[in-house]
Amino acid sequence: MVNISAIIEISGTVAFAISGAFSAMQKRLDVFGVLIMGFVTAIGGGTIRDVLIGDTPVAWMRDFQTPLIILGTVVATILFKKYIKPLKVTLFLFDALGLGLFTVIGIQKGINVGLNPGICVALGTITGCFGGVVRDILLNEIPLLFHKKEIYATACIIGGAIYFLLLEILDANVVKVIAVTLICGIRIISVKRNWSLPQIDA
Amino acid sequence: MVNISAIIEISGTVAFAISGAFSAMQKRLDVFGVLIMGFVTAIGGGTIRDVLIGDTPVAWMRDFQTPLIILGTVVATILFKKYIKPLKVTLFLFDALGLGLFTVIGIQKGINVGLNPGICVALGTITGCFGGVVRDILLNEIPLLFHKKEIYATACIIGGAIYFLLLEILDANVVKVIAVTLICGIRIISVKRNWSLPQIDA
Amino acid sequence: MVNISAIIEISGTVAFAISGAFSAMQKRLDVFGVLIMGFVTAIGGGTIRDVLIGDTPVAWMRDFQTPLIILGTVVATILFKKYIKPLKVTLFLFDALGLGLFTVIGIQKGINVGLNPGICVALGTITGCFGGVVRDILLNEIPLLFHKKEIYATACIIGGAIYFLLLEILDANVVKVIAVTLICGIRIISVKRNWSLPQIDA
Repeated sequence: MVNISAIIEISGTVAFAISGAFSAMQKRLDVFGVLIMGFVTAIGGGTIRDVLIGDTPVAWMRDFQTPLIILGTVVATILFKKYIKPLKVTLFLFDALGLGLFTVIGIQKGINVGLNPGICVALGTITGCFGGVVRDILLNEIPLLFHKKEIYATACIIGGAIYFLLLEILDANVVKVIAVTLICGIRIISVKRNWSLPQIDA
Repeated sequence: MVNISAIIEISGTVAFAISGAFSAMQKRLDVFGVLIMGFVTAIGGGTIRDVLIGDTPVAWMRDFQTPLIILGTVVATILFKKYIKPLKVTLFLFDALGLGLFTVIGIQKGINVGLNPGICVALGTITGCFGGVVRDILLNEIPLLFHKKEIYATACIIGGAIYFLLLEILDANVVKVIAVTLICGIRIISVKRNWSLPQIDA
Repeated sequence: MVNISAIIEISGTVAFAISGAFSAMQKRLDVFGVLIMGFVTAIGGGTIRDVLIGDTPVAWMRDFQTPLIILGTVVATILFKKYIKPLKVTLFLFDALGLGLFTVIGIQKGINVGLNPGICVALGTITGCFGGVVRDILLNEIPLLFHKKEIYATACIIGGAIYFLLLEILDANVVKVIAVTLICGIRIISVKRNWSLPQIDA
């Protein structure tokens, strides 16, 4: 489990960093802006999570590996942007995998701090989704998360709820794998089938 | 005092949650976006307060009641929006009450942490006002707080200053009631009389 | 060192507060909005730094002097805006000095918490630059930092890297003076010579 989990986490970090860097390039930011947006998208969710529960210095400050991976990813994205752009499907799959794993990592952290299940699911959802929210705020847009066509945070919430239900009857490691698969799967299927949440007017 | 205070705090939370949900519906966000905006508006000020003073996990993570109240409020707002919309005056009164009580709660927290009076007043003002600031940032608008016609934060600052002056001569519980009434009253009168702060051009 | 450092820090705080107040007046905010923007620009970077490393209550809450200086600065800026506006060069020099010193203060805090050098440089850069980022987000603009013509954060990163290189061979106080001078110098020269980072399109 540990190695697979590390590999998927790195893949998720890479996908999120690329997503942030591309958004920044579309807004024609300078090199530093692209770098910052790659960082913020990849570590934003975990940073907000750690600040909210008081687990400081926040994760990326204690772990030199993640910043180096993000730095390398953003530099590679800038250098090879022509070749990365067509890999949309691959990037989307990484992003979905990252979403699932980041959510489960967040839930696990909440459990460790002794929070109740509902709050743990919220913490997992924040970990998975709020890097993108910070990215959109910095780029001066209403966060995509709040009005995007497909299911995103909802996948985290469903996966998180199932996580706690299964925890009653199955081994924790097995439950983690199931929850990651579920979140990732709901996300992929929702995009393929064009599912969306209803919009509400005042 | 405790029960009244709890009732008013719940009323304030409800009013803030409705205000956030309505703002989100006006921007045509999806169901999840409306839910998040309700949460953020209701707990944003207290969350920033707790993060700044290091009282973590932040309040709403340790208290399952508040998230449930907000969830119920937002769902009810979505279902009954036609009936809630005309209750503008009632909502405004709840909001003003919530503003007063949240400010006093924030001041009290500052005193407990040993901060000096001026900083306590700032902390109270942040608790009362910054949920709305986060709401406006997420909806991609310049925070209303900074350029709205009527008095808002100024009511918190005046009420907070009076709080510390009266604390020299009166019982703490009495002072709390007076400060809440004062903040709430200034807010209501400022809207009725159309008071505003001067605008300044560079 | 201590006295010079305190004087420069106060100068930097004053320059940052004026910069925030002027930005707010250009957006025609009310008096309270101008005050908040002065505060946020002056203390935003240090506040984010303290929250990320968990050094709470954050610095400005424990130190009554800084809020008073900012308050006085903003009031003076509002009263004497006609006389301050022409002092653009003086303000720019203060701002550059503040940038250098705030960065070095941030690096020093990172070292005290036991973070590794790369993260310390990031922390210093956040301390120096992110007050302006928060200012721009609150004013609903893409942060200038990410697409401004001249070198800004890059000066902090270079100065921070040199700081750690020189720390191997020179006394810490000497290194601090050199790093502040270097960051300040790069910033000033980059504006004079119109240096900029390359823009990247997706």
